[in-house]
This record gives sequence, structure tokens and C-alpha cells, in this order.
Amino acid sequence: MVRYYLSKTDVEDLVVGAAILGTGGGGDPYIGKLMVLQELERGRKIEIVSADEVDNDAFVVPVAAMGTPVVLVEKIPSGKEALFSLKLLENYFNRKVDFISPIEAGGINSTIPLVVGAERGLPVIDADGMGRAFPELQMVTLHIHGIKATPMAISDERGNAAILDTIDNYWAERIARVITVRYGGSAWIAIYPTFGKPYKEAAIRGSISLAIEIGRALRETKSAGKNPIDALLDVTHGFELFRGKIVDVQRFNIGGFARGEAVIDGLDDYKGSKLIIRFQNENLVAIRDNEIIASVPDLITVLDSESGRPITTERLRYGLRVLVIGIPCNEKWRTPKGLETVGPRYFGYNIDYVPIEVRIKGVSKP
Amino acid sequence: MVRYYLSKTDVEDLVVGAAILGTGGGGDPYIGKLMVLQELERGRKIEIVSADEVDNDAFVVPVAAMGTPVVLVEKIPSGKEALFSLKLLENYFNRKVDFISPIEAGGINSTIPLVVGAERGLPVIDADGMGRAFPELQMVTLHIHGIKATPMAISDERGNAAILDTIDNYWAERIARVITVRYGGSAWIAIYPTFGKPYKEAAIRGSISLAIEIGRALRETKSAGKNPIDALLDVTHGFELFRGKIVDVQRFNIGGFARGEAVIDGLDDYKGSKLIIRFQNENLVAIRDNEIIASVPDLITVLDSESGRPITTERLRYGLRVLVIGIPCNEKWRTPKGLETVGPRYFGYNIDYVPIEVRIKGVSKP
Repeated sequence: MVRYYLSKTDVEDLVVGAAILGTGGGGDPYIGKLMVLQELERGRKIEIVSADEVDNDAFVVPVAAMGTPVVLVEKIPSGKEALFSLKLLENYFNRKVDFISPIEAGGINSTIPLVVGAERGLPVIDADGMGRAFPELQMVTLHIHGIKATPMAISDERGNAAILDTIDNYWAERIARVITVRYGGSAWIAIYPTFGKPYKEAAIRGSISLAIEIGRALRETKSAGKNPIDALLDVTHGFELFRGKIVDVQRFNIGGFARGEAVIDGLDDYKGSKLIIRFQNENLVAIRDNEIIASVPDLITVLDSESGRPITTERLRYGLRVLVIGIPCNEKWRTPKGLETVGPRYFGYNIDYVPIEVRIKGVSKP
Repeated sequence: MVRYYLSKTDVEDLVVGAAILGTGGGGDPYIGKLMVLQELERGRKIEIVSADEVDNDAFVVPVAAMGTPVVLVEKIPSGKEALFSLKLLENYFNRKVDFISPIEAGGINSTIPLVVGAERGLPVIDADGMGRAFPELQMVTLHIHGIKATPMAISDERGNAAILDTIDNYWAERIARVITVRYGGSAWIAIYPTFGKPYKEAAIRGSISLAIEIGRALRETKSAGKNPIDALLDVTHGFELFRGKIVDVQRFNIGGFARGEAVIDGLDDYKGSKLIIRFQNENLVAIRDNEIIASVPDLITVLDSESGRPITTERLRYGLRVLVIGIPCNEKWRTPKGLETVGPRYFGYNIDYVPIEVRIKGVSKP
């Protein structure tokens, strides 16, 4: 389908799938879902269009929330906040936006564009800038392809606003981050304004559909009484990494990020083994018995063992029984520029990136 | 004179007078002077106009540097930085500025508008928003009169830029401050964009001329072999507060401000007495033997005893022999709204403001 309107079931599936792709970040899927369902109940429509439908000279602007996800849980958004940033950018350019887009996959950030699309009647492109979630503004495939993050708009729920125009995308991240912290920990952004042609070259296509497909696979296999995890690994081309019980969670809000780690004691086949997951908004590395078994840019997602639901980093807590899976990232991230931007070394891990499908072969599986 | 061009001597006098009105803040007068003299040497002209010359519907924008003065000493500006912020604001409004203005008196911030005026051929209004210097963006008479600080432009010497539009002037201060810190400690702003009519009602008139007059009085009495301090107190309606030797200086860069205190041991008539001056970019209070003898919004200025030159807070150091003077502030600051904005309580001193000319009568003078 090149153009379709989201159903309520699509939204339910999408938030589950997006949270799995969100690798622990991108905010709480439940809040994101409520925001979108509210729009549908008001009779508004949300149109998803394939990237192929976007004219080369169309004006495309991704919209998102920025900040520590735990703050977004505490400050429930009204849905108008991101629209305000979009309007600021339209005023700045003196041009109406033709299409909006998610910048990343994740609970809130997959649904913000849907809310904006519903409110403004704007089509949402079935693509994003990550194919997953990452913590910093330059960590998008649009950056890899040379698109500027600025001019960007950044606003808060009070009505404070700023338009940033920086010399590079790292400076956009630095300045937007301190503003986000000063706003109280979360902000609403319209960013990477660009045209259809560069957008189509740079974005990761089909990511909204993929999220829906993942959510649907989980739902259908569960209702059929089958094992949803097998279906999940099948549709994502992922791998089971670990099963266990969370025995410790450390979390600090530092510099506008939720950083920390979770320690998981192995259960079942993994008994006697320990897995540590380190995160910065998103899960960055999975370390099993002192050996890294998965790292950025590949996806590491923690699921509730019983429900099969993804658990965002702010919801990790002692006692939860979890399943950890790894999913190969999009090929754009495996290029030299991609790995320079989001590889393990950027995050301070002094290791080479090894694709998860290669790593997993070397790990002794029970 | 309602319109005149600055001579080199005017500039020399102005920076001395502005530094005295700057009460320790506003940056190094020497750097500011060099920037302006360079413009004159290039053959550019700097036109000063009386506020009466400004049409009611003229577009007026004050320009300034923001940040800890000590950083400005280390990062010598090229002169183009504030012009960049002015242009950003012009682009944002899609309107050319008719007049620029200083926002405060002080070494750098009295001269930045002169440099911008020279570069762009724009007249500089003989007025400012403080009649002295203060550390925060909302501490201007334009704020007292209900003029919005935003939309404002804030840029750095690298070319990073932001346009802020906040819900009030305190939020403008908060957001601009964290951006300034992230830029490296100093930023260049175009702020309080307004029209001629509200500007004329809100601004403190004649402050450029007053600074020149103060500098001239000091220069002429010195060259005539007379006591320059008497002339200074005469032209400013000020009071001698203390004479002594600096025996301790504490200084911290906290939250984008240079905060600290200087301790002065009394000399001559003040022997046996001790004066403490506390500052936040600018001198805030003078405490003699545990008794406050002067406070914001009145002006407290430290002068070198030998040269009669004002000493900015970043130049205070052990061993300097100094004279401390107090000058009554403009009447706009003595209103309820004025004192709420810049009175001692705003800065955390739990005392009522008492005008310096009243306080000084109660102090036992030798």
C-alpha cells in the first residue's frame, strides 16, 4: 500500500513494534498510544504514505520529542507541543510543510508525528531517520547523508520557543540539549527540514509499516496460542540473547540523558550467567559474563518474559523477568560514516563493531 | 547636541565613564576601546543621536555581549559577532533596523553598539536600558516598562545562532544563559526589539553622553593637576564609600556568572575598618564592618586609588589600593517594579533597599 489511513488496531500494533525497534528509548509507548487513539476518537485521520509518493521538491520536516524519557512519563503531553514547533519552523521558512516524518522509532517518537499529522491533516511518510532509536540529534541517517539538522525549532509545553541554526549537527545537539534540560527535561522539536529528494535518499524506508508488522505478528501469534517470540525474531531477523531476572538497575539523569545499566541474572538455559545492559536513553551494549555480545548500532531490546511486551529503559526495575533480543541494524549504519556516528567507539566503548549475526555465532549457546 | 559623531577623545572618555557606571561589570573597557578605535581608524563614523531624534515607529534594537566578563577577556572579539546577531533578528522580522542602542553601561557593552553602528552605518541612540550594568537580561528598564526581551538573537563567534521567543523575560534569561555557557562563556545578542515610542518611554536617556562627561571630567581635572575624584563625585552625584587595600578576592564562575567577593582593609581615614564587596558580574553590595552601606540598584564602583581608573570585577586582585564610590541609581529603579527586579532581595539579601544618599548619612564618616 502506498497510501493508507491508520486503524486503531494499526496504532496498537505500531506502538508495540516501535517500542521493540526503540531499543528501550523513545519514551513510553502507552502514552504515545493514548495520544494517537484520542485523535482517532475525535474523528481525525492519519494518513501514511510511502516515500515513493513524496515529490522531489516537497518540503519535509520530521517532528519529535527530545529529552530524558523518564521526564516524559511525568509530564504527559497534550499533543499540541510538537505542532507548535512545526509551526515555528513554517513561519521561519515562510513555507507550509508538505509531509512530516518520524525521526526515530520508539514509544513517543513514533507517535508524535501521527498526532501532528492528525491535527494538521498532513501525511506522514512511512520512513524514519534511524530505523531504531538513538539518544543524540546527529545520530540519524539524514546526518550521514549530509542533511543539516538546523534550522530547527525547539519548544516546551509552556510556550517557550527557539529556532537554532548551528554550524554543524553536533552543535545542534549541544545547544538543543542544554535548552531541553532548562525547559525541565523534555522538549518538542521540528528538525532536519529538507526536500523530498534528499529525504528519500537519506531516510530509512518502511519503518512505520515494519513497526506495525512486528506488533501484528506478536498479537496474532499470541491470540493463536503460539510462541510470539519466534514470530518476533522471524519478522525482525533477530536473535535471542538472554533470559533472566533483573537484579539491579542504576539510573542517572546526566546532561539531559537517562544513563545507567541493568544487571540480569540468567534463568532457564542461561542459569549461572549474568548479562549487563548499559544504556543512554537507549540500550547501547549487552555484556554477558564480561563479554560484549551485542552493541550499537545493532538493536538490543528487553521484553517482559510473560507478556512479550518491550520494556523501555525508564521502566526497567528489580525483579522483572525479561527476555533480551538483538536485531541487526539497517545497512546505512554499517558504513564507515554510520559507525563513526553511532558505533560503539562514539559511545566510549573501545571495541570494533561486529555485526550481531556474526557475534552471535561465536557465543556459546546452550 | 542631538546628533554628533564620536571623536577618538570621546571614545577614550566614554570607556572610562562607562566602566565607572558599569559597577565592575560589562567587560574590560580596554578591549571595548580598541574595538571602537579600530573602526574610527578605518575611516568609519559613529553617529550618536538623542532619543528625541528617534521616530515613534522606528525599529530599535539594542545589541550587547552576554556572559562572564572574564571569558570576554580571554576570547577577544572581532567586532563582527554582535552584527551577526543583529542581522539574524532583521531576517527574522524581515525588517531593517533603524537605530541600535546599548542595553547597559560597561566596558564592552557600551562599545559593542558603537562597533555595530560603525560597521553598518546605523545611528546609536544616546540612551541605554540600565544607566549602569546588571547581570541578567530582565534587569533593564525596558522590562520594567513591559517590553519583551524576545524575539532575541544569540550567536557565538563560530557562527552558531539561535532566535529565542519565550513566554516572559525571565525565561529569556534562563534559556539565553545556558546557551551562553554552552557557547563557551560568552555570546552576542540582539535583544528587546521594539519601536521608537515604547523605547523612548522605557530607556534611560543620555547615558552615552553621561559616560563621556564622566570620562572627560576625570581627564581634564587630572591634566589640570586637580583631584579627579572630586570631579567624579560631582558629575555623578556620588559619594566616597571607602579607601583601602584589597586583601582577598574570591571568584567563581557559576551558572554562567562571575560571582565572588573582594575584601578591602581600610587605609588612611578608614584604618581599622574592613569593606566587603560582593558581586555577580557587577558589584551588588558593599558591607563595611558587617553593616551594608550601599546596595543594588545604587551603583558601587571600585577605582584604582592611584590612576583613578575603574576596576572591573575580573580585574580585582590582591594588593590593589582602591577607592570605592557609591552613585545613586536612576529613579526608574527606585519604583516598586524596579526594586522587585533589581533590589537587594532579588539578589538574595534580606534587606530593604535604602537609597545611598540616605544610607550615607547614617554612616559615621571620619
